Amino acid sequence: MTLEFVFKDVVRIYDTDAQGIAHYASYYRFFTNTIERFMKDKVGIPYPNVNDELWFVIVETHAEYKRPLRVGDVITVTISPQRLSEKVIRFQFQILKEGEVTTTGYVDQVAINPKIWKAVNIPEEILKRILNL
Amino acid sequence: MTLEFVFKDVVRIYDTDAQGIAHYASYYRFFTNTIERFMKDKVGIPYPNVNDELWFVIVETHAEYKRPLRVGDVITVTISPQRLSEKVIRFQFQILKEGEVTTTGYVDQVAINPKIWKAVNIPEEILKRILNL
Amino acid sequence: MTLEFVFKDVVRIYDTDAQGIAHYASYYRFFTNTIERFMKDKVGIPYPNVNDELWFVIVETHAEYKRPLRVGDVITVTISPQRLSEKVIRFQFQILKEGEVTTTGYVDQVAINPKIWKAVNIPEEILKRILNL
Amino acid sequence: MTLEFVFKDVVRIYDTDAQGIAHYASYYRFFTNTIERFMKDKVGIPYPNVNDELWFVIVETHAEYKRPLRVGDVITVTISPQRLSEKVIRFQFQILKEGEVTTTGYVDQVAINPKIWKAVNIPEEILKRILNL
Repeated sequence: MTLEFVFKDVVRIYDTDAQGIAHYASYYRFFTNTIERFMKDKVGIPYPNVNDELWFVIVETHAEYKRPLRVGDVITVTISPQRLSEKVIRFQFQILKEGEVTTTGYVDQVAINPKIWKAVNIPEEILKRILNL
Repeated sequence: MTLEFVFKDVVRIYDTDAQGIAHYASYYRFFTNTIERFMKDKVGIPYPNVNDELWFVIVETHAEYKRPLRVGDVITVTISPQRLSEKVIRFQFQILKEGEVTTTGYVDQVAINPKIWKAVNIPEEILKRILNL
Repeated sequence: MTLEFVFKDVVRIYDTDAQGIAHYASYYRFFTNTIERFMKDKVGIPYPNVNDELWFVIVETHAEYKRPLRVGDVITVTISPQRLSEKVIRFQFQILKEGEVTTTGYVDQVAINPKIWKAVNIPEEILKRILNL
Repeated sequence: MTLEFVFKDVVRIYDTDAQGIAHYASYYRFFTNTIERFMKDKVGIPYPNVNDELWFVIVETHAEYKRPLRVGDVITVTISPQRLSEKVIRFQFQILKEGEVTTTGYVDQVAINPKIWKAVNIPEEILKRILNL
């Protein structure tokens, strides 16, 4: 696993539900925000649609909720990319609030050619930048 | 304005927020659900992308919230289509709960050719079916 | 694992993203819709907030995406409840389109007393109805 | 109308739909983000639930979509508060991309006492800070 990238975010009213806490699917919004910023700032590619022959599509997602978050909470999201295969990247996440881990999870993505909708190898140059090699 | 079409829906936990009531943007989800069912059942066209040369895109939206809705509420949504011009259709909505109007609103759409992203006339046959003529 | 309950749903335009397919987090919406209908029709309790001393909160979620879904797709969601402990229930899901599995996943929930925000045993009577015993 | 407050935001993949552009309801997300930041930075109150006896609830929303937005677009949202009555505030918005207005709209909110769910006067001190008086 590579060095971490860190993203600051805020829990919005629309992230919450009638239990007064962030709805479970909202955490995937925080994960997505962090991937998108990472891809822009660290990797420097359009994302998830890199070009007409290279898209990243999600194939698996997972989250564990340890402590609730509430509207207005300022959170820190850490992202750690990991190569699962020539075609698949895992992004592992931790969400922290005031230094405590509230949530962990991962999002796996495969590189595809959207013209034929088939998995392809992630270009070496992009893979290196994702893995910070 | 034409005869109304009626759609039954349910307020979901993810529609609510930390105020314990449906979040204001969720009502546009109920409006969309109703348009999509209307387009399928009454007009009989794929929607919003009818074909490669005809899409409906939203140009204006409006909602007024009179009474709150809560998770589990069973609602009735009425939709009334109205021709604003050769290119623009307005869908007017009422949301009712137990016979009382909780919300009103409208969604205006323009027909475009997505290849050139320009407004086009709504085909006569589609317009007639939308307006129940 | 108990007998399955089946729910029919439709992929909406707001479930999709610029890749032209359902966004990965939308599948959790389909899972939630199915749990809510199951809790209403089969278990007969308000959900997720059963009463002032019993709420179900989500502690873990997982999904695997095998085939994409598109706007207008009619899907079948199967839900299979499973007792993980005295306090935790797992709902396992399959989403099918035209007889083929497109997505699998699960949502784990713990019973809590919201007044003290602590896990509690799921009441025997509710557990039995969830597990169809 | 008072001096404007400006908020920078980014269009996310989950804001878009299968038309390749931001879904119409996503713009209300950008409006909400801007109100929440304004309330935090300029007014200095918890929002939308200020305290146990003062909440702001949305009573009317409106948006006009002039140009589409796409994933990754960096947008500027301007917010202009306006007093409609002793109980109601309108927030007027413009969304700009590369100097051009893409979207306009407003969100009206009423102050209520959530214990009795009735409209109340907005406290003078909060109103002054909202209106920058």
